[in-house]
Amino acid sequence: MYTKNFETEIELRKGKIQSMMQKCGADAFLVSDNVNLFYTSGRIFAGYTYIPAAGEMIYFVRRPVGLSGDNLVYIRKPEQIPDELARLGIAMPKVLLLENDSLTYSEAIRLRNIFPEAKVENGTPLIRNARTIKTPYEIAMIRESAARHTSMYRKAPSVYTPGMSDIEYSIELERLARLHGSLGIVRIFGKSMEIYMGSVLAGENADEPSPYDFALGGAGLDPSLPISGNGSIMRPGNTIMVDIGGNFTGYMSDMSRVFSLGEVSEKAKEAHRVSLAIQSEIERAAKPGVPASDIYNIAFDIAQKAGFESNFMGHRQKAGFIGHGVGLELNEAPVFAPRSKDILAEGMVFALEPKFVIPQVGAVGVENTFVVTADGIEKLTLCEEEIIPLD
Amino acid sequence: MYTKNFETEIELRKGKIQSMMQKCGADAFLVSDNVNLFYTSGRIFAGYTYIPAAGEMIYFVRRPVGLSGDNLVYIRKPEQIPDELARLGIAMPKVLLLENDSLTYSEAIRLRNIFPEAKVENGTPLIRNARTIKTPYEIAMIRESAARHTSMYRKAPSVYTPGMSDIEYSIELERLARLHGSLGIVRIFGKSMEIYMGSVLAGENADEPSPYDFALGGAGLDPSLPISGNGSIMRPGNTIMVDIGGNFTGYMSDMSRVFSLGEVSEKAKEAHRVSLAIQSEIERAAKPGVPASDIYNIAFDIAQKAGFESNFMGHRQKAGFIGHGVGLELNEAPVFAPRSKDILAEGMVFALEPKFVIPQVGAVGVENTFVVTADGIEKLTLCEEEIIPLD
Repeated sequence: MYTKNFETEIELRKGKIQSMMQKCGADAFLVSDNVNLFYTSGRIFAGYTYIPAAGEMIYFVRRPVGLSGDNLVYIRKPEQIPDELARLGIAMPKVLLLENDSLTYSEAIRLRNIFPEAKVENGTPLIRNARTIKTPYEIAMIRESAARHTSMYRKAPSVYTPGMSDIEYSIELERLARLHGSLGIVRIFGKSMEIYMGSVLAGENADEPSPYDFALGGAGLDPSLPISGNGSIMRPGNTIMVDIGGNFTGYMSDMSRVFSLGEVSEKAKEAHRVSLAIQSEIERAAKPGVPASDIYNIAFDIAQKAGFESNFMGHRQKAGFIGHGVGLELNEAPVFAPRSKDILAEGMVFALEPKFVIPQVGAVGVENTFVVTADGIEKLTLCEEEIIPLD
Repeated sequence: MYTKNFETEIELRKGKIQSMMQKCGADAFLVSDNVNLFYTSGRIFAGYTYIPAAGEMIYFVRRPVGLSGDNLVYIRKPEQIPDELARLGIAMPKVLLLENDSLTYSEAIRLRNIFPEAKVENGTPLIRNARTIKTPYEIAMIRESAARHTSMYRKAPSVYTPGMSDIEYSIELERLARLHGSLGIVRIFGKSMEIYMGSVLAGENADEPSPYDFALGGAGLDPSLPISGNGSIMRPGNTIMVDIGGNFTGYMSDMSRVFSLGEVSEKAKEAHRVSLAIQSEIERAAKPGVPASDIYNIAFDIAQKAGFESNFMGHRQKAGFIGHGVGLELNEAPVFAPRSKDILAEGMVFALEPKFVIPQVGAVGVENTFVVTADGIEKLTLCEEEIIPLD
């Protein structure tokens, strides 16, 4: 299933999940979400990971053919699982965890019917919590993603040509990301959020509200995907906010940089400076034990005192957060929002994105990916943070 | 919510859904899946479409701000829906449809609790059935997508340069698709299927099994996305199967073409001719009233008689279908599989993809998008179908 040198990593993850299961009295966790299958096995497969509260995980695989490894059982359908467990001498669980927040209702009912005696509880929060604190291996993966991501951003000005539309620029940036090894897809928890590789917002379009819960919006090219660029030509006086996600290793990094054409307004430049000041203040304050809501409040207070409350995290429509955990998915814990209950802890990885929308000009601000260390936070996406002229 | 000239289209869709609801005795359908929100409103929004068995649909919108139109009610959370219905003089439903096959278990339970008196049934099959027969407007959208898609494929040889890896060629094809107006994302029903814009399979990698239920596989670049190209250099004697999805209008078209480097084996050429023969035979046989399983059997019989059974629809791992409906999602009805219950009807749109995997060489075959007419089928993706040399 996975290579020998990955065994220790899988043991570490299993240990974390099992210790949480024991605390909540769960006997087993039947995992079937792609991201969680990857987390528990090191690869995507069609099937289920069966995690007992103690002992070996069993991989029940439907596809692909040809996998081998310990604790791997091929099945055609989940209804075969109880017989296979019996064959392996594993008792049926009395308390079973299922991913209630990602299984469809129909799938959940089907799995419940396979374990009619079990009390079923929601396992999604548990495994998402386990994933929130990254292992050293995972941090190395995100570091690698961030390095490639940064290298791509450094070359962003080189693929601009005068007269481009926001979409044309986005297309060249997407190609650049792919040439740096991006896998292309952005995994997002919850099925209502949709985006292509990321967003490029120029001028007035930055103020277009979107149905999605991303930090900023944009009208998009079509009402079937109302997010990001809308095909407008980028003009002198515009800022261009580039927020292309980085999935170079299966693990996401997230970063945004702002470019400009011609002379942008003093107000936009000032708001950008406020974003950098917010980031600096948070870099001083953030460390294990600090509530994520405090981090949000630091940002909000600075924005408010600088007179930019009405532009903070959007203008016509505002985002309710200034940052979010990243990992296998783009939207993990911690969430930096006023009512967040998350507390910073060593090994968390998050993107911080204090942004402002200036009508007629565009969006400004910076976004970087950080890892929480023993006594602070470390920035992983290191490159120019000023507004970068494209012309 | 939608423009005046789109009203007739929305009425047509509403009429179709309501007539099906009346037949099955449902009082209301609360829709929240993005694709179905788009189908019932003409745009993506965060919220719910409430479809009564008769009368106007109500759009309950959370985001974006600033929408206007008839029957539009802003809400913060779905728990407000009963009060809003009461305010509008609409009786609470006794039989309610929910999308059990796409709502998560947690979301479904939340919505059920809002309608505690209602008997809840699965609405997913109903709305997917409604979407199976496309309206003239939808066929025009797919026709437009197919035209752009075809134009992109005609230029595919022009972006090849010698020594490219499969991924490098894929990147240039993705860019070409975007420059032709592709929105990038591929919507797929069911959350376990993942792909970036599509796949480029060259040489031996075409025989690599994938966990996903696509027609063919490929190892991919990373175990976190095991599908499509794996970074191999494309070599003389290889075929290169390009299957980049076409989402140019919100509606998908689907097509594949095969390219070659150097001289490919006679066996591969012969298998490609068999694919074209299968397509011709199906073009003669397919019309309203014909079972989708018969179409599958036509293909299988021709493949078997030609001695290509072991290469048909994969080699190490096989797909169980030779075609699938397309529309807002890539995998709609009808499904062309041995045990499919689907029957062809006027207005269905589908992709037909009889393919073969020849070990060491690559994949061959053709894929086109067709619409079912009153007395046959019409091909929408019209360009060269022979194996096209890249060198």
